[in-house]
Amino acid sequence: MKDICVLILAAGYSSRFWPLKDKHFVNFLGKPLIYYSISQLSRLGFTDLVIVVNKNNKSQFTNFKEEFLNTSFTFVEQGEINGMAGAVISAAKYISGKRLLIIGPADVYEDTLFDSFSKMIKTHPDGILAGTTVDKYFPGGYLTVNNGRVIKITEKPKPDAVPSNIVNFVFDYIENTSLFLDTLAATSSKKDNNYEEAIAYLLARGMNFRYLPYKGYWGYLKYPWHVLSVSSFFLEKLNGKKVKKAEIADTAVIDGNVVIEDNVKIMENVKINGPSYIGYGTVVGQNCLIRESMIGSNCVVGYSTEIARSHIGNNCWFHHNYVGDSVIANNVSMGAGAVTANFRFDEKSISSVVKNKKIDTGKVKLGAIIADSARIGVNASIMPGIKIGEKSIVGPAVLLDNDLPDGKFCMFDKK
Amino acid sequence: MKDICVLILAAGYSSRFWPLKDKHFVNFLGKPLIYYSISQLSRLGFTDLVIVVNKNNKSQFTNFKEEFLNTSFTFVEQGEINGMAGAVISAAKYISGKRLLIIGPADVYEDTLFDSFSKMIKTHPDGILAGTTVDKYFPGGYLTVNNGRVIKITEKPKPDAVPSNIVNFVFDYIENTSLFLDTLAATSSKKDNNYEEAIAYLLARGMNFRYLPYKGYWGYLKYPWHVLSVSSFFLEKLNGKKVKKAEIADTAVIDGNVVIEDNVKIMENVKINGPSYIGYGTVVGQNCLIRESMIGSNCVVGYSTEIARSHIGNNCWFHHNYVGDSVIANNVSMGAGAVTANFRFDEKSISSVVKNKKIDTGKVKLGAIIADSARIGVNASIMPGIKIGEKSIVGPAVLLDNDLPDGKFCMFDKK
Amino acid sequence: MKDICVLILAAGYSSRFWPLKDKHFVNFLGKPLIYYSISQLSRLGFTDLVIVVNKNNKSQFTNFKEEFLNTSFTFVEQGEINGMAGAVISAAKYISGKRLLIIGPADVYEDTLFDSFSKMIKTHPDGILAGTTVDKYFPGGYLTVNNGRVIKITEKPKPDAVPSNIVNFVFDYIENTSLFLDTLAATSSKKDNNYEEAIAYLLARGMNFRYLPYKGYWGYLKYPWHVLSVSSFFLEKLNGKKVKKAEIADTAVIDGNVVIEDNVKIMENVKINGPSYIGYGTVVGQNCLIRESMIGSNCVVGYSTEIARSHIGNNCWFHHNYVGDSVIANNVSMGAGAVTANFRFDEKSISSVVKNKKIDTGKVKLGAIIADSARIGVNASIMPGIKIGEKSIVGPAVLLDNDLPDGKFCMFDKK
Repeated sequence: MKDICVLILAAGYSSRFWPLKDKHFVNFLGKPLIYYSISQLSRLGFTDLVIVVNKNNKSQFTNFKEEFLNTSFTFVEQGEINGMAGAVISAAKYISGKRLLIIGPADVYEDTLFDSFSKMIKTHPDGILAGTTVDKYFPGGYLTVNNGRVIKITEKPKPDAVPSNIVNFVFDYIENTSLFLDTLAATSSKKDNNYEEAIAYLLARGMNFRYLPYKGYWGYLKYPWHVLSVSSFFLEKLNGKKVKKAEIADTAVIDGNVVIEDNVKIMENVKINGPSYIGYGTVVGQNCLIRESMIGSNCVVGYSTEIARSHIGNNCWFHHNYVGDSVIANNVSMGAGAVTANFRFDEKSISSVVKNKKIDTGKVKLGAIIADSARIGVNASIMPGIKIGEKSIVGPAVLLDNDLPDGKFCMFDKK
Repeated sequence: MKDICVLILAAGYSSRFWPLKDKHFVNFLGKPLIYYSISQLSRLGFTDLVIVVNKNNKSQFTNFKEEFLNTSFTFVEQGEINGMAGAVISAAKYISGKRLLIIGPADVYEDTLFDSFSKMIKTHPDGILAGTTVDKYFPGGYLTVNNGRVIKITEKPKPDAVPSNIVNFVFDYIENTSLFLDTLAATSSKKDNNYEEAIAYLLARGMNFRYLPYKGYWGYLKYPWHVLSVSSFFLEKLNGKKVKKAEIADTAVIDGNVVIEDNVKIMENVKINGPSYIGYGTVVGQNCLIRESMIGSNCVVGYSTEIARSHIGNNCWFHHNYVGDSVIANNVSMGAGAVTANFRFDEKSISSVVKNKKIDTGKVKLGAIIADSARIGVNASIMPGIKIGEKSIVGPAVLLDNDLPDGKFCMFDKK
Repeated sequence: MKDICVLILAAGYSSRFWPLKDKHFVNFLGKPLIYYSISQLSRLGFTDLVIVVNKNNKSQFTNFKEEFLNTSFTFVEQGEINGMAGAVISAAKYISGKRLLIIGPADVYEDTLFDSFSKMIKTHPDGILAGTTVDKYFPGGYLTVNNGRVIKITEKPKPDAVPSNIVNFVFDYIENTSLFLDTLAATSSKKDNNYEEAIAYLLARGMNFRYLPYKGYWGYLKYPWHVLSVSSFFLEKLNGKKVKKAEIADTAVIDGNVVIEDNVKIMENVKINGPSYIGYGTVVGQNCLIRESMIGSNCVVGYSTEIARSHIGNNCWFHHNYVGDSVIANNVSMGAGAVTANFRFDEKSISSVVKNKKIDTGKVKLGAIIADSARIGVNASIMPGIKIGEKSIVGPAVLLDNDLPDGKFCMFDKK
């Protein structure tokens, strides 16, 4: 794989991921998501990585870059042109003339995808597009395939107009990168989907693009609640108990596959049900119950708190809380008695509003999505699927049943 | 006792028992109340039972009928005429010509009542009316007695006009059932109390009805909170610890007389104070405290919940709750942080509204009465003595200080 | 010290101490504050105590007076004249002609103060005024000192007009008490500061008053939250574990310096972090967490309550509460789910309103101050620094963000 250049698209922000920020740097098991992509590529023999970054996340790669001694990293800041096309064009001078594998944004797949890829590339196609079959509508690009050859690519069709059940994700191989770059430059505009247009153009010109069918786990971070399923994917990979230099009370019970990092303190009568992960320096107070959750570093999960099936960032503070099926970013604190509701009275699946449109999350249990540095007051009640913006404050005793934008204070309404 | 036919009145609904339903099928220690009546009659040698049922509860007898091999059961659905008189008339063809003991509705007494009865019946009276002396006013029928003979029956006198301190409960023996049926037919009307009128008529004609004084425990389900005292009666009969095929954490502490049924799971650090009963398949989560309570089958008493002096039905869900001195029917769920208040600030006894009238329950501690399939939102606060109707919903963060009728949704009031 | 008469000023009430009452009888480690003053004086050899009391606290001295066999107690009720001057004048006939040490009101200092005092008195000054240096403004009297001699006393200067960094506290020695009494009588009026005026007069007449510098702990109860620092002072003096005739569950963990008095019951899975004190007959329910707190006698700290860095009086009831950095007087009860918030969202120091003026408490963590016999409803939320008056009621689900005067009921606002 040494002669294939991998282009990782890690520059984009997505408003659909609000209130969470950079998908690539959501942490799982103590490392950002993009660490796992790079680690996977390195393990499978790719050594030439070109990464399109943005000015905010650029510096964060330095935290782990050194771990990959045999890998060559080239970082490119995305230029003026938006979207995936713009990202590829920004990297032109580092990829031109190379065979190119384009990866991103923020997808997770198993090594088997690469196994299939390395077999297929030996057949010398003009390109490879990976995809997976879906049971129900997915709002993405669809491939029309004939005898293993991709005939057509259809970007975001309406649910009643899907051309196939094959959804394409960004794992695209291009034999002739220079031609692709020329095509992109020709079609490039402000349009959202000119990356796909360029591929469609090549297909229309009769190039032999093969369909790489993938049947393993495909994780993606399109909406913020997707963090929960990716989190579960990583948790389910845990195998056995790993407790490092932690201080654990005799009466704490740790059940199943659980990783506990250095400097963790677990107080009396805590119960941790695996699979769970407790990050560096986190304190779990007396009587807490943690079930199938991932908790970041330097958190205080204070006395009498239950965290169930949730993903918690770093430096968060809880006490006397119930946090269920929720995604909590970094530096968030919750006052005593604040709870996340995670279940509708009518037991229907929970909706969430994204860009002014109510969409069905498909989840019957879903709590809150809380962004960095938010504060939740004592005895606040946060309704299922509600999202709370960065640095926002939910006042004490508030019943929050609408999303709260970034930087807002929602106070209890008194007459 | 084989030659005495027992007529059990189990058809009636009572609006005073709202929001709870059929008194006879409230469960105690895993069996419906009426099971205990039948069991008691069977144990004491009665073999001919005629049971007046309604179309809803008829089928429920099949769950346990088979246990009483030597007992003959006749089920009669009540006809058009209302009340106790209607019930007796409905059963006419099965009881006519027999010596008759009429029992019900939904009373509980100890075996000693039957001992006295079997002695008294040897004196061949025309009838026997049981009663008990009361210290303070009880809204029922009163007996005037002279030398052991009942002179008069007064139905529901005003508190300042009670003729005696002997309250009659329905444990009435009639020697000449045919004559009684004729009398009932003659006086029968839509009136509430023509059963008593018929007996009064027989008394006035000079028939020798004896007063059977009873001094033991008399339990009744007139108002829904009476479930609590009947529940205590059954709990106090528990003797020792009975744990069946249950899974109990080493750190759980079970103190006093406690029955734990099959398939129960008791998690770490749970404390159960007897007398208590935990029904089949129920899960008691980490750190819960259960004190002097009866909990039905297949419940989940989730993490950090306290249930004190309460009666809980089947299939209920709790977590992070305080439930004190409350009656909770079946299929009820409470969100995290929802609590029942069970004590007035002024420490006075708690009132409850029944049929638009505020009545004093006589209880200084009383929580909520919650009917089947109700849902209570997170952080809701339910005031003492409040009743919540079937399938009703108390929204999150609601302060509920009025009864909520069946099928209603009480939302948090925002401006 | 036998020839020095000590005048203890224990009559005054201070509205700045609202909602708490008599400072001298706030309990610490089971004894009123004034007990420690008397005990300290007795231990250091003072045997002639004149105590100015008021009609309410007079009788309370009898509870412990007997312990001090070698001490002569004289109680004087304060007469008509207000303030410290009035207090001294009231005691005139018991102190006149004696060498006099005036102490109070409700200050706490270490024995080292007396050591310095006994050395200094050997130099035969006309008077001694004790003081301590402060880093930042303190609203009290300031001393101007030259070569160890007090030149001037300035009562409550504005922050920008302090004459020195030496704050005077009431530990004043007067050689010629008769002269002082005459001076007081001459200046005496309704004015707040004529005590200081009298001393200033003596200084102006050239009398040799020495400055007694004190560097140890100086505790005072000016504002009600000062109870917390005095409480910490007493707790930090605890050394080792002292458990008397208490019933303590095997699974309870008691960590650090903790005193547990007779008849205490500590239930399963309780954790007590020292330094802490649990008073006579108090029950600590299952799973409670008590951290660095002082809890009075006959309290019930019910199931699942956390009390952190707080001072709790006698006969208080809690369950399912979080009480942090709070002062709770006697006979207070809190319903399930009621919590004290103790931290601002902006992490600034917490203010409290005293006599209609917002003052900065200087504390980043401060909960509630709750007076005798208050009642807090279920799920109530009390904001940082809020004070609740005697016999007041905070209704269920109330968000209390203003002080509640004595005897008031604050209800939840519904539309």
